[in-house]
Formats: sequence, C-alpha cells, structure tokens
Amino acid sequence: MSLELCSTVSDFRDACDAIRASGRSLGLVPTMGALHSGHMALVDYARQQASSVAVSLFVNPTQFGPNEDLSRYPRDLAGDLEKCEAHGVSLIFAPPASEMYASDESTRVVVRGLTDGLCGAARPGHFDGVATIVTKLFAVVGPSIAVFGRKDYQQLKVVQRLVRDLLLPVRIFAHPTVREADGLALSSRNAYLTQEQRQRARAIPRGLLRAMHSFARGERRAVVLRDSVRDELGHAHLEAEYVTLADPESLAPVELGGAVGSTALLALAARIGSTRLIDNVVLGEETALSVSEEGSKAEGSEHA
Amino acid sequence: MSLELCSTVSDFRDACDAIRASGRSLGLVPTMGALHSGHMALVDYARQQASSVAVSLFVNPTQFGPNEDLSRYPRDLAGDLEKCEAHGVSLIFAPPASEMYASDESTRVVVRGLTDGLCGAARPGHFDGVATIVTKLFAVVGPSIAVFGRKDYQQLKVVQRLVRDLLLPVRIFAHPTVREADGLALSSRNAYLTQEQRQRARAIPRGLLRAMHSFARGERRAVVLRDSVRDELGHAHLEAEYVTLADPESLAPVELGGAVGSTALLALAARIGSTRLIDNVVLGEETALSVSEEGSKAEGSEHA
Repeated sequence: MSLELCSTVSDFRDACDAIRASGRSLGLVPTMGALHSGHMALVDYARQQASSVAVSLFVNPTQFGPNEDLSRYPRDLAGDLEKCEAHGVSLIFAPPASEMYASDESTRVVVRGLTDGLCGAARPGHFDGVATIVTKLFAVVGPSIAVFGRKDYQQLKVVQRLVRDLLLPVRIFAHPTVREADGLALSSRNAYLTQEQRQRARAIPRGLLRAMHSFARGERRAVVLRDSVRDELGHAHLEAEYVTLADPESLAPVELGGAVGSTALLALAARIGSTRLIDNVVLGEETALSVSEEGSKAEGSEHA
Repeated sequence: MSLELCSTVSDFRDACDAIRASGRSLGLVPTMGALHSGHMALVDYARQQASSVAVSLFVNPTQFGPNEDLSRYPRDLAGDLEKCEAHGVSLIFAPPASEMYASDESTRVVVRGLTDGLCGAARPGHFDGVATIVTKLFAVVGPSIAVFGRKDYQQLKVVQRLVRDLLLPVRIFAHPTVREADGLALSSRNAYLTQEQRQRARAIPRGLLRAMHSFARGERRAVVLRDSVRDELGHAHLEAEYVTLADPESLAPVELGGAVGSTALLALAARIGSTRLIDNVVLGEETALSVSEEGSKAEGSEHA
C-alpha cells in the first residue's frame, strides 16, 4: 500500500470512504505534526487495531490562546511523511486552516466540568478547540478506532467523554506516555528547549517519580505528594503553573488538606523560559516512568 | 418492509447499520413526536430522497428551559406509530431520556451568533440542546439526508450551520411550513389551544400575510413591516414575545429605523394564554401562506 496525502476535506473524505467501502477498518491518529517517536507509537498501536491507519497533521488554531505558540509551533511535513511511510500509514491529512474552519464558522463542541481545572484553567477555550477539531476529524474519517496519548491526559478524558456523550461510533484507545531514556515525556515542544533547559527539564519526571515512590511507600497526604513534585521543579528553577492531584476519571481536584484514594492523577504544567511542558502519572496504577513498549499497555474504552 | 421500533441507542444503531450495509440510503426526520401532517410532509419528502426513512420521537429535555412545557408536551406513541406505518417509515426511535443522556453527561454542541436573537434570546440554552441532540442522532443513524421544517426557521439555520461547521456527512433539506386552511402553521403545541384561542391565533398568519402584501407593494421600512404584524397580534390580544426582521442567512436583525433588502426573514413568537407559538415568512421569496404541496418546495443544502 502506498501513502496518500490529502489536503482537502473532500479528497480526504473520499479516500476514507473508499477504504471503508473496501471492507477495511480505519484507525485515526490525530496529531499536530512534528511527529516524534511518541506519535509513531500511537500509529503502530493503531495499525494493530485497524486494517488501515490515517494520520492527521493539523496545527489547530482554535486550541491556541492569543498569547500562545501557534505561529512558532514546529512544522515538518517532509519528515512527517517519511515517518508515516516507514510506519505503514495509508492516509495523511494535512489541510490548511481554511479547509477546517469557514471564515464565519461558529460551532464549538464544549465539554464542561472536565475542562475546568488543570490545563483548562490556564488555557480558556483550549479544550473547546480540541473537542471541536476531534469531532470534525471523526466526522470526515468515520474511524472505527482512534488513538490518543496519555501524556495529554486531560485531552484524553475530554475526548473519551465527548465520544460517549455524543454517541460517536468510534472506540478510543489510550496509549502510555512515551519517554526519553531520562524520563522526559516526548513532546514536539521539547524542540524549543536549549541544552541547558533540556537538562533542567529532567526535574519533571524526577518529581513525578519521587511522588510515585512516596505513594508506593504509603504516603496519601495530597500536600506531601504535591510538594514532592514542586520541590524538584523549584530546585531546577522551573516555574510550576500547576501541580495538581485529581480524580483520574472526573478530574475533580483532591483538596490539599486531604488524602488521595487508591488512585490519583498527579498532573503538572511547568514553564522553562517561554516553553510550557506538561506531564502526569496516575498514582496507584501500574505505570512505568520509562520508555513504554509501544502499544503494549494501550487500553481501549468502548463508546457508550 | 415492516416498521421497526427501537428504544435503545444500541438497537437503533444496529438497525441503521443494517440498512446502510444493505446498500440502502437512510433519511432521518428528527421529531419530538405528537406527529401531525407537517411532520408527515417531512417524512414523505425524506422518502423521495432516501430509500429508507427513520423517524426519531424524542422530547429532548435539554432544549426546554426550567419554566417551559417539557412535562406537559403532548405525547402520543400509538398515534405516531400508526402514522409512520401509513407513510412507509422503516425505523422509529423512541428512547427514554436516560438512553440519550448519561447522568453525568457534560457535552454540548454550541452554535454561536445565529442563536443570539429571535427564540435564542428568550430561551437561553435552547439551541445548545437542539444542536446537541441533532448531532447525537446523526452520530447514531449516519443518515445521508435529514429533513427539517421551515416553521422552526432558526433551528433549521442552526442545524445547517453545525452540519457545515462540524463537516458532518449529511445533506439537510428544508421543507416549507405546512399550514391549516386558515393559514395557522401546524404545531404540536396547537393542541394546547382552546377553541377561542385557536380563533385568535389566526392573527399570526394574518399579520404575516399583511406584511407580505405590504412588501410586495414595495414597502421596505422595517418598522412598518413589523408593525403590520404587531397590529394584527394586538387586535387579537396576543402577546408578542418578538416580531423581528432579520437577514435570512446570518439572522442578524434589521434595525427598526432601517430598511430591509431584497429578502428578509420576518419571524415572531407570540403567547396565547400559556401557549407560545412561533411562525415566520421570508419576504421576497416566492412563498405561499397556504397549505404547502408536500415536499414540492423542499430545498437541499449540501454540507461543506
């Protein structure tokens, strides 16, 4: 099978329709491009779950705030195509923004509650943009499955929720965060870091690991677990936007004076210079803060 | 073909999948039940456009405000089934609310701008509820076409917009308002009227007709056209919630001191006792304020 590149909704829809009409199942991996090994792990996993895989490469403007990094977000179409070809992708969709949003577009998919805290608090409208573009991509592709990374944990929960609530006929798989050898989560935004910043960024997985060890030894006080992370960030002079313990499903925050239950999401956003990085672990889950075996732990969640 | 009745999303999805898998196209007519000849005209039109037609009967709670008529909205499943059978419907979907909304559901499809004025102003959240349930029904059915009545003009525009903006693969057809012999638009809510109120309600089409005649004679002043309607409503002691001239596409209101262009939506909501009725005409369009020939003027609008 060769790799087909589509840049219009109409061409991409036709190509997806043709695949489905031939009786093959379609998996979708939505990305913003600048693909790295984390993305390719999602692709490999999607290929295990569906006979053909489509990858979208779209830096979605509606999920960026006015002072965010939309214009400088890394783009590498040639490299993305090469990686997708090497990983057996059937279709790539790389539209201009005008294909995805009419000039007078005015529709948003809004997931309430789940989007109040964590990244949603600092990025108003971000998850409306995410939920909207994901709904649109699903409408064009008609995939039977789609794969999202757990690195963007809140995004994953938002997508799972909208799929359930809107009764969309797609099964969402969550893939574990893929990490560098030193534990830093892979992210297209890591490319922004200077060498010195890259070294300091190791404080993020170090902090999460410290909290995991502390949790494993029986620590349940929210403030202590949180401060394990904050202290590491502070030592490396990283600015914590948030370090939050929350319910892994509802994302309701655990009060700092309280204690966590048998599992808890520990999520953070930190700034190094002008770069904003996020990471998370679910305490109480069997999680390895190391490079994941690709796809080995991805978990499916059926639509309602 | 016999008529199949489904009450769960899962059964209905399977039945729709089976129809599409057999190569037949599916048309959807979403309704809140209590079917009348207006609905059946939409059904007949859908049958001309698709090989099989599904009708949903669902009094959607999220489009009712806290002080609205959700609990007393007319329901007549037996009558609805009989009418659908007589009109060659293949599938009926009559779910309980719990099938359509999980107890912790939190997702809304929101269409901005188009929903600010007219009924949107008096019914906050109404069109979010409409847009959400329509998106869900489309996700379950996967129809190639769907038919909506022009009586609910703002709803029609909201649906057309969300289909375009969310790139949904469905073609929306607009069916002309079906009227009684005296011009009153058919509505399930007409059943609330006493005989005396039913007589007074004739002021609604009379007012719209007066404005149409005035427009045909060259009148373009917004305030004069509006007052043609308001005067008729006033004489019959109907309380006008709004009588508004607006752009037929953007629904942007025409200022009262200004003049309308070559076409203008003239829309109203009026109360008779506790019953709220709506109606509209598009001035400058070839429109008959009489019982429409069923389907003869329905107009398709392709998704983007």
